[in-house]
Amino acid sequence: MKTKLLLALLVGSLAATAHAQVKVEDAIKWRQSAYATMGWSMGRIKANIDGTYNKDEVIKSANVIQAIANSGMGALYVPGSDKGKGWVDTRVKPELFTDGPKVGKIATEFNQAANELAKVAATGDAAAVKAAFGKLGASCKSCHDDYRTKQ
Amino acid sequence: MKTKLLLALLVGSLAATAHAQVKVEDAIKWRQSAYATMGWSMGRIKANIDGTYNKDEVIKSANVIQAIANSGMGALYVPGSDKGKGWVDTRVKPELFTDGPKVGKIATEFNQAANELAKVAATGDAAAVKAAFGKLGASCKSCHDDYRTKQ
Repeated sequence: MKTKLLLALLVGSLAATAHAQVKVEDAIKWRQSAYATMGWSMGRIKANIDGTYNKDEVIKSANVIQAIANSGMGALYVPGSDKGKGWVDTRVKPELFTDGPKVGKIATEFNQAANELAKVAATGDAAAVKAAFGKLGASCKSCHDDYRTKQ
Repeated sequence: MKTKLLLALLVGSLAATAHAQVKVEDAIKWRQSAYATMGWSMGRIKANIDGTYNKDEVIKSANVIQAIANSGMGALYVPGSDKGKGWVDTRVKPELFTDGPKVGKIATEFNQAANELAKVAATGDAAAVKAAFGKLGASCKSCHDDYRTKQ
């Protein structure tokens, strides 16, 4: 029991150290990069839905979104990164760092929607992809509406 | 035969249109974003190799790299994007657009190395991950050496 507690404290401390090692400017740059990479992939899927449907391209794009959605990007919201510059100034609202349960709910819905999109993309069912894409887009929008400043 | 030829011409023409629709500044920004997202993931894997190994974090990071490596980023090297600004000025050398076979070989090796890393990451074998990570890093470097200007 004592060993377990010590181990937990040690692991917690190591995790905190690893956390602290991510510089604010890097964290913001990586966040912006990951969102832009997902944005590219969303645009590609939309082009396939609106135009000629290429199953392979949709799969590749959905896999990128799924992998990034499941990457643990939360780790990039390090303390102090509510302000600062990555590629450009961050547009995150400070509320994202304090609205724990609400942000967690949006993040969970986003993950589920990304997993669902990748799942239906693999089947090549364009109608199902369109529905899943719409759901994922709505999830993106709900976070942007509440936690990203308007440009 | 004639129908096939017409179809090939049509598909080629549609592909060219879709290709042309990607703006140079977007293509460069998406390239920079995708590489930065892979850079974040490489850094996370390195921290796991050098420090405490967390199987789950390595899997997540390797999956991001694999998905992006297989996304068809070649489509982002649109004509005219040898110069221009995404988040920042591109550092690509014009030779990347003309050294077809050599670039293709590097890209294939990069894809294989990314797939191998994701495969061994899933097993949790830290030594195998270290070896695959080294191979992938060497593949990144070979492209940087030849096709990215020094800073």
